Amino acid sequence: MTDTSDLTRADATRARLFDAAIAAFAEKGFHGTTTRDVAAAAGMSPAALYVHHRSKEELLYLISRSGHEHTLAMVQDAIASSHDPATALRTVIHDFVVHHARDHTSARIVNYELAALTPEHFTEIRDLRRRIEGAIRELVERGVAAGVFDTPDPRMAGVALLSLGIDIARWYREEGRWSPEDIGDHYADMALRMVGAR
Amino acid sequence: MTDTSDLTRADATRARLFDAAIAAFAEKGFHGTTTRDVAAAAGMSPAALYVHHRSKEELLYLISRSGHEHTLAMVQDAIASSHDPATALRTVIHDFVVHHARDHTSARIVNYELAALTPEHFTEIRDLRRRIEGAIRELVERGVAAGVFDTPDPRMAGVALLSLGIDIARWYREEGRWSPEDIGDHYADMALRMVGAR
Repeated sequence: MTDTSDLTRADATRARLFDAAIAAFAEKGFHGTTTRDVAAAAGMSPAALYVHHRSKEELLYLISRSGHEHTLAMVQDAIASSHDPATALRTVIHDFVVHHARDHTSARIVNYELAALTPEHFTEIRDLRRRIEGAIRELVERGVAAGVFDTPDPRMAGVALLSLGIDIARWYREEGRWSPEDIGDHYADMALRMVGAR
Repeated sequence: MTDTSDLTRADATRARLFDAAIAAFAEKGFHGTTTRDVAAAAGMSPAALYVHHRSKEELLYLISRSGHEHTLAMVQDAIASSHDPATALRTVIHDFVVHHARDHTSARIVNYELAALTPEHFTEIRDLRRRIEGAIRELVERGVAAGVFDTPDPRMAGVALLSLGIDIARWYREEGRWSPEDIGDHYADMALRMVGAR
């Protein structure tokens, strides 16, 4: 039997490993990071890491799943926040952009290390990505159907809208000239122009 | 003295190492690739590689410099192709997008491995990137000054326009539904909307 304080300690250890893995993968890439690097950054031995995770890939998978689930929920909430497609699109792009600026370190891992997942894990994450893409595309299609958006290819517009946000994780740094909110507001305006909002 | 056939052979070897390094870095990331991997992919020994390049980082630098110089020249040519800012922007975004789709493998290395360069090499590449960004920003500013574009922040619009193209290198695959030209045409239309072209 495991008592509550043991569970809490295990959770705290897993959270520390999770954060250490994000920092290590962001600095040297998944393939350039050893299990030993992650364990050392979390202040433990490689053997202790294996008590909690079967592999370095499992940590990448958990980081990736957590990031994608967070983004999917955020996108769904933003879309549900208004019946008006333009208002919903403004909110979803603003929130998506702010997230990719504020959490750029984990967002880089989530978006740029997909090829390092096992085929089984990749399939699961790909399905989450398709749900995110699908939600944005359906919003654009709804706006076109309602006559408030005008774009010849809602699917391609959706891909471009996501690119605007994702690529922020590549270039954003805290010491830059713009805050996440500045970028979120300007990009939301550009997004409405991209879909031909009236 | 080195005769011409020796020079030609050395050039061919360097080209083979260059291509092998692109393939290896794209597959496993710069940090996950060993000098031995690159040498093996080019069909030579690690010792033979060192005859041509001092380090793995030197290969990354050469790939990065070549990619950025190519892109800068492409952007400058496209901008010079028309006095009309809208026509020039259409051409530059089309060409930039087509390049990032068609050459997505090398474009991923060029854009996502900058942190692995030595500080001296990074500074040189950063200057090339600033010239590319500056050329796009100046084009947008010229359109605003001429009254044919309408955007509150030409610098941010320029960053967003580059993101649209760069992020294609992350997601584009040959087996997908769109050709590089399809994406180039649609994205050029979206770019004109983003800057409020009249």
